[in-house]
Amino acid sequence: MPVGDVSLVPLLPIDGVKIGICEAGVRYANRRDLTVFKIDDGASVAVVTTQNHFVAAPVQIVRKHIQTHTPRYLLINTGNANAGTGQDGLDRALATCQALAEKAGVNACEVLPYSTGVIGETLPSERIIAGLDKTLSDLTADNWLNAAHSIMTTDTTPKGHSVQTTIDGTTYTVTGISKGAGMIRPNMATMLGFVATDACISPKLLQKILVDLTNQSFNRITIDGDTSTNDCCTLIATGKVGDLIDSENHAHYQAIYEAIRKVMLKIAQLIVRDGEGATKFITVKVVGGKSADDCAKVAYAVAHSPLVKTAFFASDPNWGRILAAVGYAGVPFDQSRVSVSLDEIAICQRGGLADGYTEEQGQSVMSRPEITVSIDLGQGDCTDTVYTCDLSHEYVSINADYRS
Amino acid sequence: MPVGDVSLVPLLPIDGVKIGICEAGVRYANRRDLTVFKIDDGASVAVVTTQNHFVAAPVQIVRKHIQTHTPRYLLINTGNANAGTGQDGLDRALATCQALAEKAGVNACEVLPYSTGVIGETLPSERIIAGLDKTLSDLTADNWLNAAHSIMTTDTTPKGHSVQTTIDGTTYTVTGISKGAGMIRPNMATMLGFVATDACISPKLLQKILVDLTNQSFNRITIDGDTSTNDCCTLIATGKVGDLIDSENHAHYQAIYEAIRKVMLKIAQLIVRDGEGATKFITVKVVGGKSADDCAKVAYAVAHSPLVKTAFFASDPNWGRILAAVGYAGVPFDQSRVSVSLDEIAICQRGGLADGYTEEQGQSVMSRPEITVSIDLGQGDCTDTVYTCDLSHEYVSINADYRS
Repeated sequence: MPVGDVSLVPLLPIDGVKIGICEAGVRYANRRDLTVFKIDDGASVAVVTTQNHFVAAPVQIVRKHIQTHTPRYLLINTGNANAGTGQDGLDRALATCQALAEKAGVNACEVLPYSTGVIGETLPSERIIAGLDKTLSDLTADNWLNAAHSIMTTDTTPKGHSVQTTIDGTTYTVTGISKGAGMIRPNMATMLGFVATDACISPKLLQKILVDLTNQSFNRITIDGDTSTNDCCTLIATGKVGDLIDSENHAHYQAIYEAIRKVMLKIAQLIVRDGEGATKFITVKVVGGKSADDCAKVAYAVAHSPLVKTAFFASDPNWGRILAAVGYAGVPFDQSRVSVSLDEIAICQRGGLADGYTEEQGQSVMSRPEITVSIDLGQGDCTDTVYTCDLSHEYVSINADYRS
Repeated sequence: MPVGDVSLVPLLPIDGVKIGICEAGVRYANRRDLTVFKIDDGASVAVVTTQNHFVAAPVQIVRKHIQTHTPRYLLINTGNANAGTGQDGLDRALATCQALAEKAGVNACEVLPYSTGVIGETLPSERIIAGLDKTLSDLTADNWLNAAHSIMTTDTTPKGHSVQTTIDGTTYTVTGISKGAGMIRPNMATMLGFVATDACISPKLLQKILVDLTNQSFNRITIDGDTSTNDCCTLIATGKVGDLIDSENHAHYQAIYEAIRKVMLKIAQLIVRDGEGATKFITVKVVGGKSADDCAKVAYAVAHSPLVKTAFFASDPNWGRILAAVGYAGVPFDQSRVSVSLDEIAICQRGGLADGYTEEQGQSVMSRPEITVSIDLGQGDCTDTVYTCDLSHEYVSINADYRS
């Protein structure tokens, strides 16, 4: 069961993007598992990919194709990650791109392939190719919600968000979808995220926006600390609305940046809310650091600690575990200046027990489904925030059984 | 249930060390929880302590006392870690040292305090002080096994080992005990380890031996990646047997080094075998790295991955999870040169599926209680090894309930 409200707003179509899906039987029958995005000519497309050094075959191809061509098609399968598959994996991924390119009358380099699912098994490329006609015949602008379903693996709920923003009489729309519930500690992007806007943004600026916002959203969530081999986030600007935005000084820049930020943060947080076995949504906010990097290190140490995560699962205010994690994050500090709160309750002040803290107060906060851990390092003005979930029996059950 | 054989050899007394224990009621009644080591005058003592920046009060005092005095007494309580307790924690730990020093007729700086248990609660120093007389009256040379029991917290089994080595007609004895089952990813030492030998070793060389061997034993085990605030390992050389060994060139050096190494590795591995909820003992051996540090990073990434650990729990040869962890360890490599084996079964060769690998082979290895994961990075001659356990439902149960 996801944590908190995971209902979706209506996912608005983006002029210049059409989506088709089908059941290609990649791993299981009767499951939507193949998705194609068709992007109109003239769009800008930016991509960020995993920093895992075991780079899945499709991600290697994405990195290569985007260097020389503006993508016209995205081809996404679930059920098989095509990672750890060597040269055969590259050949098979490329074959699917070529098959789609022929049918669509574009260059194979204008197709970006994405795969998610089990690692280390041979990609059934023939099933993907066999499903292309059906997928292409399904192309329509209002298929975002179906696509959100079609890219799911262990996800229990589809993830998406839309925002509209109007400035100087021009209305821009941003829509995004994402997937992921385990092997989630994105490092450049989530497992898979696709965001599109009808604004007209230069490729260079679009890439900068994507990197910036990935670092505030997908790169700040963690479920189990396991960075996937397949993480990719793609941002499309179709250029159908408004004038060219090619600088941060453009009058419309802030509004469109903010709209994209809202969509990306929402669909990143939805991944945490649907974290494998999650029963709590935890925000770890670190302030008072010498650098944002220090703050992120401390936040991740807390967010990854199995002891902290099981204490949240148990609603046990065993806050010593938080202190221990803060202490081993690799960031030097003077412990007599460190303070920690759970929501509004101070638990640790100046490295010792907070005045007036009672176990009952701690218990009452820990029982909430959404909790913010605030850590003040007392040594500077920098801050960073990470989103995570607890570690439950259900997590172990899911991952002791799961094969995509 | 611990994994594999955790029976102990007889723990041999060390001439020059006496141990007393008692039930002081630190946290629970009717539980041995207070231990005193008395060390004869003339011994050398070396200590390594946690690198957690939230340093427990007793560890702060250990670090201070060892700088100016050779310890004559070690005072160890379980049930309360005296960490996250600020100035009050320091005052209370020091009060226990002073009380023991008065009764024993030594300087308070010649007493080292050690605490283990729940973090963030006030140390009941008055109960410890009240238990001192009884503990001192219990001092005897053959109390090692009782002490191994007396320092346990969530441990299900006592941990200790003894080795004797004879060289040039001189027989040296080494005995050690340790404790720890959770919050275990020692960084300088385990939760608590006490090792003594009757050899005569200069303080400087003893410290070097301790640091060297800690890095091969306690610093290479991990259960949950949580480095404790209280880790300490203490090595005592009482100087009762043989001549002074003050250089690595001494004819007896290698023999005594090897004997200490065996004891430390054994009592470190016993901690993993008794890891909270452990059902498997996993050795992660990385070879072919550019540096030992690279190899350790990769080994720890695999050993800490919740997805890898749950796959071991499930006996599921889902080895893609191992590849993913290798890839996100932060060590760059050419994936086409990486190979991975589970015991004798090659699962991944040159970044792809190993020739002839079958799921049945993987399944058969994964069902074993002790498994070695061998990872060849194919880029150099360095190596490192880390010992860990799986992640089971029992781990979640223990840590969702546990308060020391």
